Amino acid sequence: CRIHCFSVCSIVGVLILAPVNYTSAGPSGTKRPNSMEIFTVSNVPKGSDRLWVHFSCLCFISFYVVYLLHKEYKEMSHKRIERLKYHRKRPDQFTILVQGIPVCADHGIYGCNVDHFFSKHYQTYQSYQILHDNGNIESLQKLASSLEKQIERKRDTRRCNFWQWIWFKFTSGPIDARSQEQKLKEVHHSIRILQCKNMLKQKELPVAFVSFKSRLEAAQAAETQQHVNPLSLVTRYAPEPTETIWSNLAIPFYRLAAYKLGVFIAAFLLTVFFTIPVTAVQGIVQFEKIEKWFPPARAVQLIPGLSSVVTGYLPSMILNGFIYLIPFAMLGMASFEGCISKSQTEIKACNMVFYFLLGNVFFLSILSGSLLHQIGESFTHPKDIPSRLASAVSAQSDFFITYILTNGMSGFSFEVLQFGLLTWHFLKAHTVGHSDEPYLYGFPYYRVVPIASLAVLIGMVYAVVSPLLLPILVIYFLLGYAVFINQMEDVYEITYDTCGQYWPTIHHYIFLSVTLMQTTMIGLFGLKSKPGASFATIPLLVLNIMFNEYCKVRFLPTFQCRPIQICKDNDDLDKTEREAECSSEHAVRAYTPPWMRPTGSSPESSSVQPLVRCLL
Amino acid sequence: CRIHCFSVCSIVGVLILAPVNYTSAGPSGTKRPNSMEIFTVSNVPKGSDRLWVHFSCLCFISFYVVYLLHKEYKEMSHKRIERLKYHRKRPDQFTILVQGIPVCADHGIYGCNVDHFFSKHYQTYQSYQILHDNGNIESLQKLASSLEKQIERKRDTRRCNFWQWIWFKFTSGPIDARSQEQKLKEVHHSIRILQCKNMLKQKELPVAFVSFKSRLEAAQAAETQQHVNPLSLVTRYAPEPTETIWSNLAIPFYRLAAYKLGVFIAAFLLTVFFTIPVTAVQGIVQFEKIEKWFPPARAVQLIPGLSSVVTGYLPSMILNGFIYLIPFAMLGMASFEGCISKSQTEIKACNMVFYFLLGNVFFLSILSGSLLHQIGESFTHPKDIPSRLASAVSAQSDFFITYILTNGMSGFSFEVLQFGLLTWHFLKAHTVGHSDEPYLYGFPYYRVVPIASLAVLIGMVYAVVSPLLLPILVIYFLLGYAVFINQMEDVYEITYDTCGQYWPTIHHYIFLSVTLMQTTMIGLFGLKSKPGASFATIPLLVLNIMFNEYCKVRFLPTFQCRPIQICKDNDDLDKTEREAECSSEHAVRAYTPPWMRPTGSSPESSSVQPLVRCLL
Repeated sequence: CRIHCFSVCSIVGVLILAPVNYTSAGPSGTKRPNSMEIFTVSNVPKGSDRLWVHFSCLCFISFYVVYLLHKEYKEMSHKRIERLKYHRKRPDQFTILVQGIPVCADHGIYGCNVDHFFSKHYQTYQSYQILHDNGNIESLQKLASSLEKQIERKRDTRRCNFWQWIWFKFTSGPIDARSQEQKLKEVHHSIRILQCKNMLKQKELPVAFVSFKSRLEAAQAAETQQHVNPLSLVTRYAPEPTETIWSNLAIPFYRLAAYKLGVFIAAFLLTVFFTIPVTAVQGIVQFEKIEKWFPPARAVQLIPGLSSVVTGYLPSMILNGFIYLIPFAMLGMASFEGCISKSQTEIKACNMVFYFLLGNVFFLSILSGSLLHQIGESFTHPKDIPSRLASAVSAQSDFFITYILTNGMSGFSFEVLQFGLLTWHFLKAHTVGHSDEPYLYGFPYYRVVPIASLAVLIGMVYAVVSPLLLPILVIYFLLGYAVFINQMEDVYEITYDTCGQYWPTIHHYIFLSVTLMQTTMIGLFGLKSKPGASFATIPLLVLNIMFNEYCKVRFLPTFQCRPIQICKDNDDLDKTEREAECSSEHAVRAYTPPWMRPTGSSPESSSVQPLVRCLL
Repeated sequence: CRIHCFSVCSIVGVLILAPVNYTSAGPSGTKRPNSMEIFTVSNVPKGSDRLWVHFSCLCFISFYVVYLLHKEYKEMSHKRIERLKYHRKRPDQFTILVQGIPVCADHGIYGCNVDHFFSKHYQTYQSYQILHDNGNIESLQKLASSLEKQIERKRDTRRCNFWQWIWFKFTSGPIDARSQEQKLKEVHHSIRILQCKNMLKQKELPVAFVSFKSRLEAAQAAETQQHVNPLSLVTRYAPEPTETIWSNLAIPFYRLAAYKLGVFIAAFLLTVFFTIPVTAVQGIVQFEKIEKWFPPARAVQLIPGLSSVVTGYLPSMILNGFIYLIPFAMLGMASFEGCISKSQTEIKACNMVFYFLLGNVFFLSILSGSLLHQIGESFTHPKDIPSRLASAVSAQSDFFITYILTNGMSGFSFEVLQFGLLTWHFLKAHTVGHSDEPYLYGFPYYRVVPIASLAVLIGMVYAVVSPLLLPILVIYFLLGYAVFINQMEDVYEITYDTCGQYWPTIHHYIFLSVTLMQTTMIGLFGLKSKPGASFATIPLLVLNIMFNEYCKVRFLPTFQCRPIQICKDNDDLDKTEREAECSSEHAVRAYTPPWMRPTGSSPESSSVQPLVRCLL
């Protein structure tokens, strides 16, 4: 739904912008060359009055984008409120996460401290669910599930294929079925012993989920400072139980800070030095060398023309292959950072991928030399940024038309074919043998959002410089809209609902695009000896920045916290429907960690079931 | 108390630092020249091993300052909590300020909306005090007080002096005493009519003070987002009634943002272009020219030697005169920004004055050329900052010794003599005739804090470069301590208590000083061909920045908001003392604006009296 709004907005924007650019740039073009560069600014002579047409066009686009962004942010904020109302029975509305709990002086444990503090300070406090050190239980549960699988596999060995048979021979060994069943029972028994309360009290962690009877007090507790020391009893909104990353909850703050710094440095280095390994691999993997090491590859030469295609496309395929892997690498890095929920991790990954693409696709394509060299140049001569950007941008419009056409289309076809996931699934199913797992994944926002944002950025920067890019972009977005609507409805599963927390990120990308467009135009007017237009663009840039600041004050807080008014309204709605008890009672039960759920049954059913029943 | 802690900390720091510098730098000095530059780094030959002594000294100072800052921040945070407990009956603990109230759809006024919202969402809500458009009442009250004064003055015309007599003749005119008394009565009557409730309902402003029965809910209300739109029903902690700037409360947000931007630009321009008017005035006001235009000035030449002293000191006096006026100008600019309380205004002014002094005293003294030129140079060549700073700093140590000695001492003597205020008061008393006003002012933090911080900065930067500055600084701080303790106890009045909100500002200044010291040393080691030491200083700088980030997380929140725990403790203390009713009932009454207080009596007594009684 978010991507939907976003692409619709972009399409509308681009559709309206496109004809304007034509009509404004058209009449001023007296002679018409037959190349594609009819209307591009780079063809306009120095100091020409036609540049003022481009300037008015820039003004129109800037103000129109600001108008669209404002409208969209307002709508998204409204939708978020609606969504919070719709999800009002979700357990995370009643629950907060408390980290850094101090040890109780009397009992030496954390639990009683939480209970004591919140029952004293909050009237509608209900209960708490403290986290325990899970080390042993989780490994036992893994052992139990692997034993279960082995037993099951033995029962239907006849049905398995060759690879599975080999795998089975390697793993199961010479143990017979009965002794395994005995062992499974023992493991289940020891899990139950470890899960009993007395054993757990010694393993408490300083992290707990605290639930309230009213959403109002939960919101108040999440947003205020509880303890004199701001680093103990740190409260925040609890993530949804299904998207909580349990292992990250107990990480202490100093380690979190270190992880954050480490991941930032790693992402920065990956972005800056990405080209070095790629060029190295491109140097090693050449078709001539492959022929030497793997003679059957010579078969390619038998088909006429294929050999030259392979030789020509191999470096580009290697580059695109690396870029295709980047979102997954960034997601891995983001999940190392210790976010408490999947959605937060994916938003982080989304940011990292966007900045990676901005550096390695946009800037590296328009500027020559390595990214490190570019950053160094900008740092030592910050004054020259607009003019360097302008001269580079105006030279590369043809490249980006090709880029959008080829990479965009191939990306969509990959997306429709689900090539990567199908391959991965096929490999997994035919070697390890977990073919019973459902083939269902959440929507890969961290992969789709940055690529779409990059297309918006390219469109925005070239909207005035070379408006012929825009119809290509319109085709790109229309196709993208069709593809992703289909994928979202039929292919991917909804794994979490952040109530619109992706929008501020996308808004920021579009803001960056507009800033980049205006900076480029400042440089371009300067290059074309129109200092008047160049200086007149500066107020536009200032207005754009001020609009962004306004959005931060006017809309962003609603995306970061829950207004008291909405919480109270939801509480009142419950009262009229007499359902408050039901939802708030199940709130804390929903936050039982996976290793605390009863053994012998499937891990989801026991704790999520009551919630689901309540929702339906 | 704040300044006290601060100077004690600095003195302790400098006292401990000073001998360390001597002992560390002393043994390495093989030959001892008889000038003051024995231990300065600039005398150490290039690439010498003695530089490692300076490096270890730098490490020691950096870590010791971090230790002291941490200790002090912890202590200040503890003191703030103590102070909040001590002031727990102050009305601002029960009250919040609500701005941007939407109009009630049914009645077309603001008041009922506030009452409705807070009574619905908060259980301990007590009452509200809405603000009204005061225009007419305030002018009438001014008229009444001027009439009162005129009547009083007529009664004791015999006692007044020549100037007052002339003033009186000019202002009072030919009206006799009885008609004036009649007029005064009429004015009082019309004020009372305007103050009646029905008249006021039409003049409501979208700003109100809302009071609660418990401090806990007041804190919760102040810190959470109330309305779906973050710009309506904006809540924050109420300022103390005595330090509230009433006229600024009703300024709408968009105008506040414009004021803020305007004041920032004005302060920036004043800081950057300060030298231009000063040099212009210095050019115009020369002793030779004064003699031409004002012949009695030739009398100076009669005393032998005085003439050369005047000619020599005149430019420096003009510069110092301008610098003396800067804090007042900055305070005026800060009060234009629309802060809601005096303390906030003074903290703003404090910041502006500190950056002014940093630019125009520190940087302009060590670097040549105008400040604008310096900023331009740093912007275009950011890499060269450390080396430029280093070469400039090491050349100017003598200048700063003189600066601290002369300007510091003259500043203290001015402070003790109260020269400026005495002159101002004398002029006022002998022309306008308001000699009955008490000669009492609040402590001028906005003037004292930046000057003391600048001394700390100079000491910090020169601690390693030229440690002979330190004994001078110790004398400076000891004298300052004696002077300001006296001034605070006997001269100035306590007008407000922010519970330590000045400390984060001072902490930031000291952090800046340490950063500047380390940047200088990076450049200096580079200049002295010790790249090893230069690179080894970079981790120190990184550690320093990380420590500052830690302080922002660990201590700053306690200074910006009130922990729930403390609020609850204070509420519970009241319950045991059975005094809660008394303080919370008077809370909203204390927030009656000055123009709403009953006429005919002195403005303070009516509303503040019950509070004072309650406090004693």
